Amino acid sequence: MAKPIKHVFVCTQSRPPNHPRGSCGQAGCMEVFQAFAQQFEQRKLHDKYALTNSGCLGACQTGSSVLIYPEGVMYAKVTPDDVATIIDEHLIQSQPVERLLQPQEVWG
Amino acid sequence: MAKPIKHVFVCTQSRPPNHPRGSCGQAGCMEVFQAFAQQFEQRKLHDKYALTNSGCLGACQTGSSVLIYPEGVMYAKVTPDDVATIIDEHLIQSQPVERLLQPQEVWG
Repeated sequence: MAKPIKHVFVCTQSRPPNHPRGSCGQAGCMEVFQAFAQQFEQRKLHDKYALTNSGCLGACQTGSSVLIYPEGVMYAKVTPDDVATIIDEHLIQSQPVERLLQPQEVWG
Repeated sequence: MAKPIKHVFVCTQSRPPNHPRGSCGQAGCMEVFQAFAQQFEQRKLHDKYALTNSGCLGACQTGSSVLIYPEGVMYAKVTPDDVATIIDEHLIQSQPVERLLQPQEVWG
């Protein structure tokens, strides 16, 4: 693939139920990843943007975690309903979605 | 984790033997990931840098693939022997390792 304008990483780490760290898997990250994948396909975003699943991004208690480079913007508690907003505002308009940002003390 | 100075993604995608796309798994990516993990641990790099395994980065024929953000530098055919060099030169000195760069026509 060509170098993307922006690269979206969706944590798809799973851990067993009741694991003390929790996981994005428990928070429904696969549905978040699928929502991105579907939008990328429908809106033909693959030419300019990249989407990759990833291992643990470290913010296990506030999944689903989504990380966008090159800015290094980390989103917390992302649900499938947030995906279109992240694409519209962050990917296309380069305006991070404030309400979903991981707090500065966790990722800052 | 705190926002890292640089974030290393190692593709750990596997596919069955003889799959037409090949995979970083076939190229030995798990050993590359483990080599990074070991160096991160031994050299206490986790405070400033991040290491994450990832799904397919798209350059399946030239694995193992390693991608470093925020620069968006993609390395091809990385082996465990290359890991210390990438850490020394790219992570610590911010000098990409020219001989390992993915060609411009693939990632440029």
